[in-house]
Amino acid sequence: MAAPRIDNLQYANWSEKIFREMREGGVDAVHVTIAYHESFREVVLNLESWNRWFEIFPELIFRGQTGEDVRRAQAAGRTAVFFGFQNPSPIEEDIGLIEICHQLGVRFMQLTYNNQSLLATGCYEEDDTGLTRFGRQAVAEMNRVGMVVDMSHSADRSTLEAIDASTRPIAITHANPSWWHSALRNKSDEVLRALTDAGGMLGFSLYPHHLKGGPDCTLDSFCEMIAEAASRYGAENLGIGSDLCQDQPDSIVTWMRNGRWSKEMDYGEGSAIAPGFPPQPTWFRDNRDFPNLEAGLRAAGFSQVEADGILGENWLRFYDASFGAQT
Amino acid sequence: MAAPRIDNLQYANWSEKIFREMREGGVDAVHVTIAYHESFREVVLNLESWNRWFEIFPELIFRGQTGEDVRRAQAAGRTAVFFGFQNPSPIEEDIGLIEICHQLGVRFMQLTYNNQSLLATGCYEEDDTGLTRFGRQAVAEMNRVGMVVDMSHSADRSTLEAIDASTRPIAITHANPSWWHSALRNKSDEVLRALTDAGGMLGFSLYPHHLKGGPDCTLDSFCEMIAEAASRYGAENLGIGSDLCQDQPDSIVTWMRNGRWSKEMDYGEGSAIAPGFPPQPTWFRDNRDFPNLEAGLRAAGFSQVEADGILGENWLRFYDASFGAQT
Repeated sequence: MAAPRIDNLQYANWSEKIFREMREGGVDAVHVTIAYHESFREVVLNLESWNRWFEIFPELIFRGQTGEDVRRAQAAGRTAVFFGFQNPSPIEEDIGLIEICHQLGVRFMQLTYNNQSLLATGCYEEDDTGLTRFGRQAVAEMNRVGMVVDMSHSADRSTLEAIDASTRPIAITHANPSWWHSALRNKSDEVLRALTDAGGMLGFSLYPHHLKGGPDCTLDSFCEMIAEAASRYGAENLGIGSDLCQDQPDSIVTWMRNGRWSKEMDYGEGSAIAPGFPPQPTWFRDNRDFPNLEAGLRAAGFSQVEADGILGENWLRFYDASFGAQT
Repeated sequence: MAAPRIDNLQYANWSEKIFREMREGGVDAVHVTIAYHESFREVVLNLESWNRWFEIFPELIFRGQTGEDVRRAQAAGRTAVFFGFQNPSPIEEDIGLIEICHQLGVRFMQLTYNNQSLLATGCYEEDDTGLTRFGRQAVAEMNRVGMVVDMSHSADRSTLEAIDASTRPIAITHANPSWWHSALRNKSDEVLRALTDAGGMLGFSLYPHHLKGGPDCTLDSFCEMIAEAASRYGAENLGIGSDLCQDQPDSIVTWMRNGRWSKEMDYGEGSAIAPGFPPQPTWFRDNRDFPNLEAGLRAAGFSQVEADGILGENWLRFYDASFGAQT
């Protein structure tokens, strides 16, 4: 069987069109965000919406829970959909909700989304106080049940402490190195070394604010960055987490940034004159462009085996090791 | 392997002591009630309590989801715990919560608990208007995902309509024939024939209010009743659903009867002078007495194969057929 293709972070405005485009782009598995600011009860409504998609389009998508589901998806020409939270808001103040969410299929949870959370500090706060008391226990519980700690939107000290506290490898599902493009959301060399030294995974983001040159970033530049990252961190710890927000209206990026916590407009990585979603680079407009990444990686000097790893095998190996109960 | 032993309805005050007594009594699987009047959010808290039991006593119990789990439990000397609701209150007004609850392990749901529900009429109401509009859709959804319709506390017309509407066999998990002991909660011959003609299962109750002679009911009388039921409905459609409420304080039977819906005291099957739980018959005091049932059935003339069926194999066959998605 050919190597699988996995995009380990999307938040699209889901539709039959996109599910079909995932098949067209050869995306065998996708990790989708189902919470930015939702309470537990609100996340259940999002899960119900997904159940309805699965019921309506069984030939295109199904709920993924294990690495084996990626292989099943690939064999059947479908896409396995894995759930994740970008914020711990759905577990509220209740550590027992981690296992409940895992039982409902949630496989990734960010400890923070930009702001201070009950668990850790987000990358937009001025002071980073690291993991909280609840945060340390939540990491242990996530380790126990098989929910991956994701620090994509966390501040550095919190991230380093999570890497250290976690007894299983963690992930930064969608970010790029700040040595390539300096952005609040991109990650320092120190963080990326600590992450990958501990067996963790970095998913490269295609969100224009994380790209050198923004929407004008070239495929060459992106793939040369990946080559440099491979030389620093090992190609086997790298994957894709495109952060693709396909077909979303700008009201959604306002929701992502402001939730219900802010009465002033927070522009996040945008600005008052450009508050919406930035345009995608021409070579990664939507799910159909996934094959362009393969061509780019090969042109940047990666072997087919290395490219297959970055485009899916590495995440699959990580899924196999991460989603079951700790042994 | 010996035949499994299944008790298809208990609501104990769970403790390590009871889990050990289940092993002592050879109970390989038990269907436990996790909702009488709870909202969805409250049921999640009950599920969390069970997760905690499973974490603390992995050598004694685990969450059962399929018939295969009963065989796993038996092979490992543990008890598989299956969840059920005695009331549809946890699905609130949201049909999507049926699949969510199924994903969390819920395998049985009563359409009513004594009162009129959003789905059907309970056995304590004066008028029985049958399945509601929501009720018909809920039955179809339960059929689709693999959640068993349980009519133990429903009124006759509602029960007959549920048997008719359901495309999969349903259950009356805990009740006895009213021709043996006339009680509001026991079931008419007409209902039991319709149930079993459609492949449905009856679980015999050991709750004293459902027994001829109450706590003084003899094992002989109970097993002779089962023999008569076998001749009328077929031994293969019969099982045990003891309704055992081991170690529960009387405050619990008040909760079961009154929930938060009643400002007047409702005594249910009790009375002002005997408002609490009645004492169990001496031959079925707790989980350790399960073997007495086997002796009683054999003495009543059942073959070992028939007794094994009634004590577990019949429920297991029903689990195998009922808990997966409809094909």
